[in-house]
Amino acid sequence: MTDTSPHDLPNLNPNFKLWLEHQGVYVFGPGAFALMTSIHKTGSITKAAKELKMSYRYAWGVIRKIEKKLDAKLLDSFKGGKEGGGGATVTEYGLSLMKLYSLVNERFIDFIGDV
Amino acid sequence: MTDTSPHDLPNLNPNFKLWLEHQGVYVFGPGAFALMTSIHKTGSITKAAKELKMSYRYAWGVIRKIEKKLDAKLLDSFKGGKEGGGGATVTEYGLSLMKLYSLVNERFIDFIGDV
Repeated sequence: MTDTSPHDLPNLNPNFKLWLEHQGVYVFGPGAFALMTSIHKTGSITKAAKELKMSYRYAWGVIRKIEKKLDAKLLDSFKGGKEGGGGATVTEYGLSLMKLYSLVNERFIDFIGDV
Repeated sequence: MTDTSPHDLPNLNPNFKLWLEHQGVYVFGPGAFALMTSIHKTGSITKAAKELKMSYRYAWGVIRKIEKKLDAKLLDSFKGGKEGGGGATVTEYGLSLMKLYSLVNERFIDFIGDV
């Protein structure tokens, strides 16, 4: 290990974690985005939780916490259905939130490519 | 809690954590930057650790881990000195790393203001 000179800085690449805040409070980050994307795709909290290797209880907690902070529903859930076990659909509000996160995230990714 | 329509999305602001990676491995983030900035200012790991409310052992571990990953020295440390207890100065390499992080971070902050 030598006292390397500055021009020997190895190839260092920036990376980031992005989240959305409301009045300075963390609301919506990559974990919630992945969970909601999976719920939207599978139509079920149970299936989404399984896909993301988290418990149903944890997954539901993530959603409920955001709903509480924003005072708005992210999911419409229903019981039963032809496959049983109920299901969940993402509300218009939830979709808007996902879209906002996704747009900002894409802009960050584009930006980081130019840094 | 109502099924709010999309245009009712509250004021959500993006925030981020930035770090530098080397070959896909986390190397240098905001914690290390704050620590090195404090070491550079105080000339001492002990004082910097105290300022950042971490143990000397933890602070030194942060530095050593980065040095190992980059195979380069970030600090020159010396024992004794007029005040006793030794001291540490940031190497040219360490200063370059701090400068790189700081530049990218500033560009991110500027960018986020425009999102």
